[in-house]
Amino acid sequence: MYNFEYQNPVKIIFGKGGIRKVGANIPKGSKILLTYGGGSIFKNGVYDQVKAAIKDFEVVEFGGIEPNPHYETLMKAVEVVKNENITFLLSVGGGSVIDGTKFIAAAACFKNGDPWDILSKRALVEDAVPHGTVLTLPATGSEMNSGAVITRMETTEKLSFMSPKVMPLFSVLDPETIYSLPEKQIANGIVDAFVHVIEQYLTFPVNSPIQDRFAESIMKTLIEEGPKVLADQNNYDAAANFMWSATMALNGLIGVGVPQDWATHMIGHELTAYHGIDHARTLAIVLPGVMHIKRKQKENKLLQLGERVWKITEGNVDERIDQTIRKTAEFFESVGIPTKLPDYNVATDTIDSICSRFEKRGYKIGEKADIGPADIRAILENRL
Amino acid sequence: MYNFEYQNPVKIIFGKGGIRKVGANIPKGSKILLTYGGGSIFKNGVYDQVKAAIKDFEVVEFGGIEPNPHYETLMKAVEVVKNENITFLLSVGGGSVIDGTKFIAAAACFKNGDPWDILSKRALVEDAVPHGTVLTLPATGSEMNSGAVITRMETTEKLSFMSPKVMPLFSVLDPETIYSLPEKQIANGIVDAFVHVIEQYLTFPVNSPIQDRFAESIMKTLIEEGPKVLADQNNYDAAANFMWSATMALNGLIGVGVPQDWATHMIGHELTAYHGIDHARTLAIVLPGVMHIKRKQKENKLLQLGERVWKITEGNVDERIDQTIRKTAEFFESVGIPTKLPDYNVATDTIDSICSRFEKRGYKIGEKADIGPADIRAILENRL
Repeated sequence: MYNFEYQNPVKIIFGKGGIRKVGANIPKGSKILLTYGGGSIFKNGVYDQVKAAIKDFEVVEFGGIEPNPHYETLMKAVEVVKNENITFLLSVGGGSVIDGTKFIAAAACFKNGDPWDILSKRALVEDAVPHGTVLTLPATGSEMNSGAVITRMETTEKLSFMSPKVMPLFSVLDPETIYSLPEKQIANGIVDAFVHVIEQYLTFPVNSPIQDRFAESIMKTLIEEGPKVLADQNNYDAAANFMWSATMALNGLIGVGVPQDWATHMIGHELTAYHGIDHARTLAIVLPGVMHIKRKQKENKLLQLGERVWKITEGNVDERIDQTIRKTAEFFESVGIPTKLPDYNVATDTIDSICSRFEKRGYKIGEKADIGPADIRAILENRL
Repeated sequence: MYNFEYQNPVKIIFGKGGIRKVGANIPKGSKILLTYGGGSIFKNGVYDQVKAAIKDFEVVEFGGIEPNPHYETLMKAVEVVKNENITFLLSVGGGSVIDGTKFIAAAACFKNGDPWDILSKRALVEDAVPHGTVLTLPATGSEMNSGAVITRMETTEKLSFMSPKVMPLFSVLDPETIYSLPEKQIANGIVDAFVHVIEQYLTFPVNSPIQDRFAESIMKTLIEEGPKVLADQNNYDAAANFMWSATMALNGLIGVGVPQDWATHMIGHELTAYHGIDHARTLAIVLPGVMHIKRKQKENKLLQLGERVWKITEGNVDERIDQTIRKTAEFFESVGIPTKLPDYNVATDTIDSICSRFEKRGYKIGEKADIGPADIRAILENRL
């Protein structure tokens, strides 16, 4: 195990009825900016519950934060924070709304130049507006971590930043909020959480049995509980287990002291940038390619994944790895998410564009920083 | 899964060389009380490393905190904190030193009467002196939780308290600190951590697959790595995995949203109070009795423990439960910890004393609060 530091002070308020506790967790006298997305919270009753919970506060609203939240939109919210003297941000939504609100929190306090530098130059976030969340879509883990991914439309760039300053003070995880979600979003959440685990697990062994087994625990639970949620969205227990799995998948715990990959995410982001494909779907496309092309480097962990999660114990090494890749892709397909580029009408010219973009950036990706443009081409061509 | 709230802001600094980072994690200008136990830190070099790390601070020392730390001793430290205007506590040791220092932290700030009320009446801890730890003995999980257990010699009472105010600001977990530990203390730590997991796991099912699997992950890792540490105390990887297991066993995470038992601890504390038996050893004695007497109520989880952790799949229900209890006791015996009362020269009159003490207290224990004096007698008689 590598040396590590770990600290995660986010307060989790888990379970049905949790939204009622929001008010008591916001400092008295706060002026709140309530942020949300496209308005699904108006249809499922979450908006009403939240408004009731913060009725003693002065509240300004900022809706319309997009999936893959846009820098351009978020900078408008930053103006509102400044003009209205907002002292607390309450985001209600999924990962996009929470990520976007993290950026608003940091950008509103950013004093050293253009807030875009937070993303493009990883400029230090010295301060941020305090922020609480009400999660309505289990997927990204943003409700209990320090990261955010933001898209700039102008340049079709999708960039991320991390700062302990933007960790939520609290996050309400009420499984009942997912009862009315579109099936597609549930499926995306299952795949997103699963691949988050894979990025921190499917590398090379460093003798970290607790982290490995926790990762496998989350994957097994997603494989069991995900389909139950899809079969019956009002299954509270399944919704709760799915929600807790997604949070645990990316709150930092399973990633302590171990190598991490994230190549699937880096390549997937480009598919979203060029074609607007849902984030989780890009992961389902790219991951089997990464598993195949890096099968030698990841051999030990691929075999462990196969044996412990997919119960694959027959065959020689190559056969077992092939089965492991196939089972993983089949799982994604089984929740309704296709895993090949043609399924999304992506043609080979996109592969060229993505490779030349990585060429220009000049750095390599993956747990050994050895995946360059040629490997990315091989990974994507494996998905044709 | 039950509703829950979870927040654990302790910063973990994990790995070799971690002690060097202590100074940077203590507020500048602090006046430190350095607390420790019987002086083993002088022999293994930990004291020197700590002193070097805090050389820029004014430091007062308070050594001699006992195993099962004594209220009487700790109140002397409280006087030092007040007289010397101490502003930060740095505990260096195992669970007893850390627990004791948590009590010092709370008692020094306690304004509403006798600090003993914190233990005897669970009086609210409104404030505490900030506290960091350097762990030298993986076992209790105290380095990453809010609890402490204190013994009052005068009345042979062993009582606990919990408060988020006494959670350490940081804890340094350097696996190299355990290289020189006596074998007995390592064995105690393995059993202590294992039983902490059991207390949060071996109850009744509430559909909590993440919590269950995380608990099983920790038990499997202790079963694998514990003997490796005993075989070679300088095995860094095994020491690291043992240390991280013990912290994860009682930092609250596996206990969220699930019923908890703690009967083994409650009964075990009495064996320590009457006979001075090491805490972990009392758990190894009592647990098999609890498993046996509550086999009906715990049936589902006993079978799950048997199958997933001990690989027991043959036999009828009773046979499988018997095997599970036997395997658990054999594991304790295998690390050198006897599991029967006569092994510790405890006779039946102690059983009488313990039962009448629970009689007087008037409350029942266990996850269903249904274990009274008669059940406690049956549990202890099972261990004769």
